Amino acid sequence: MPASLSHDALPPLAVTLGDPAGIGPEIIGKAWAVREAHGLSPFFVIGSSRAISAVWNGPIARIGSPDEARAVYGSALPCLEIECTGEIVPGQPDADGAHCALHALEIGIGLAKSGVASALVTGPVGKSQLYAVGFTHPGQTEFIAERCGIARDNAVMMLAGPSLRVIPVTIHIPLRDVADALSVDLIRVRALVTARGLCRNFGIEKPRLVVAGLNPHAGENGNLGREEMEIIQPAVESLRAEGLEISGPYPPDALFHESMRETYDAALCMYHDQALIPLKTLHFDEGVNMTLGLPIVRTSPDHGTAFGIAGQNIASPGAMIAAIRMAEKAVRGRLTLSESACG
Amino acid sequence: MPASLSHDALPPLAVTLGDPAGIGPEIIGKAWAVREAHGLSPFFVIGSSRAISAVWNGPIARIGSPDEARAVYGSALPCLEIECTGEIVPGQPDADGAHCALHALEIGIGLAKSGVASALVTGPVGKSQLYAVGFTHPGQTEFIAERCGIARDNAVMMLAGPSLRVIPVTIHIPLRDVADALSVDLIRVRALVTARGLCRNFGIEKPRLVVAGLNPHAGENGNLGREEMEIIQPAVESLRAEGLEISGPYPPDALFHESMRETYDAALCMYHDQALIPLKTLHFDEGVNMTLGLPIVRTSPDHGTAFGIAGQNIASPGAMIAAIRMAEKAVRGRLTLSESACG
Repeated sequence: MPASLSHDALPPLAVTLGDPAGIGPEIIGKAWAVREAHGLSPFFVIGSSRAISAVWNGPIARIGSPDEARAVYGSALPCLEIECTGEIVPGQPDADGAHCALHALEIGIGLAKSGVASALVTGPVGKSQLYAVGFTHPGQTEFIAERCGIARDNAVMMLAGPSLRVIPVTIHIPLRDVADALSVDLIRVRALVTARGLCRNFGIEKPRLVVAGLNPHAGENGNLGREEMEIIQPAVESLRAEGLEISGPYPPDALFHESMRETYDAALCMYHDQALIPLKTLHFDEGVNMTLGLPIVRTSPDHGTAFGIAGQNIASPGAMIAAIRMAEKAVRGRLTLSESACG
Repeated sequence: MPASLSHDALPPLAVTLGDPAGIGPEIIGKAWAVREAHGLSPFFVIGSSRAISAVWNGPIARIGSPDEARAVYGSALPCLEIECTGEIVPGQPDADGAHCALHALEIGIGLAKSGVASALVTGPVGKSQLYAVGFTHPGQTEFIAERCGIARDNAVMMLAGPSLRVIPVTIHIPLRDVADALSVDLIRVRALVTARGLCRNFGIEKPRLVVAGLNPHAGENGNLGREEMEIIQPAVESLRAEGLEISGPYPPDALFHESMRETYDAALCMYHDQALIPLKTLHFDEGVNMTLGLPIVRTSPDHGTAFGIAGQNIASPGAMIAAIRMAEKAVRGRLTLSESACG
């Protein structure tokens, strides 16, 4: 590894606490505790140190700015303090906590955009709590995209585990609305952002993409649905004509077993559970959500606030650790590439 | 094991060849070849010995009736001959082959119903070939149900692998039609037949059933779809009130990882790929399709004719072996139960 890419060279990663009443504080503390075993690059948390010390009894060092993180990282969890008003009770989210989570997110985006933090890892937030305090974006991803000046459809959610990367083309909509939400354009945008994102963040210059059908058996020549013939196939063909290494639509149930997974770098899925079922079946505790198409590197653990188990010291930090690792790897990957390498 | 349950006591299992141009002939031959390693109870194939010897070079013994199978099973694959007219070319199905497959199926059902065969294991058929010769049932399952005098909705398809059993509540319909095809009654029928079938075929007296939601996050209290609140939840509650051990609806993507799978005996899924994606992700080469609700035991390998690889000696017999084993186990299970034990 060139000297310029050693741990010392990277600015620290910023990790937002998420909702202070969720499992964010606990899993971030636990991730720091195993930083050496997992070789985690220096990171700091943005949030309330009070929320962390309520559920985790490791050492915390309040820092005034990100550049102080590295010096204390070896002996304490660096924390860029966000004052939360009100009581913080694990498992009992409130408006104060939602404000606090949003404040941390806003600061984290700014630090990552400026390069003072090398990447943004976001802790889990409670969406209904955020909505209740006036948050109008569907989720953190869309908020980050807007702050980065990226159109919503161009910020693509990818879920990744050790042996599978999936991209849901449609996401948080009722299943009955999925077929009508699909279009050639939407599939094309997701595929193009995905291909460039896999190149920029993982150094895969010519990513191999596969596309799932929508219907059982991929429609069986129109007998079980026509979206494959009318939407998915034309999208795949046009992308292939432009030089993408992409194939499909495949029968959805034949796409995720081990020998098939080895043939591609990412699978485009037509709806939320087509992507999330195989990912969570295989990698329940280590799934990472990465946003492709942003100027910054952004990851998060692929789970929610888990208010039901917050404060009980039973939450697994596996996905948070994986999210920090993936973010660091992407930052290093970007440093080795020239912009032009990924088209 | 009581003497009455030894291999000697069971009538042989009947295995239909399926389409003679598919991989059925090859995988049945291969299954016979490993009968000792897998402890397979004596079985015989119903079909054209010509189709088998064209793709498999093991010994075949033509038998005149099932009761001759046991004597030859140790040294050759017993074959109850069905004459096929015309040439048989692996990978090139035709009308003659479809007739031949249908004939074998009809005979197999009769033998299983009469008890001369202890169970029916069906080889894969080509549906479009069957339709072309006048077959009017959606698939073999519905045909078998009719011949057994069982209403279609009361014959329930279960897919099973070593660590997961799934029941698709809706099956071969376009995804856009799934939401409207669901009803409280349909879920109830599937659940009741499943509970009784798990008892009769697997000896699980009080099966633990879980039910998946339809929408992402199981609808998130109606924000992402209302079928959970209006259809699935009421069905689950009414079944529970009647004494079934059943719970749900659960977020579909949280239902299939290892620690969750250990908590239930079968999962009811709302559509084909919700059931088949996790099953085939985990158990691609060993999935078994078992029909619950029949008076006979019926299984089949959970794959198709695979015309594209027929005759190349590369087809895996794993699912066929698993189908034969599961059928035998179910037969033995039924022998140990009194009818009344399963309600």
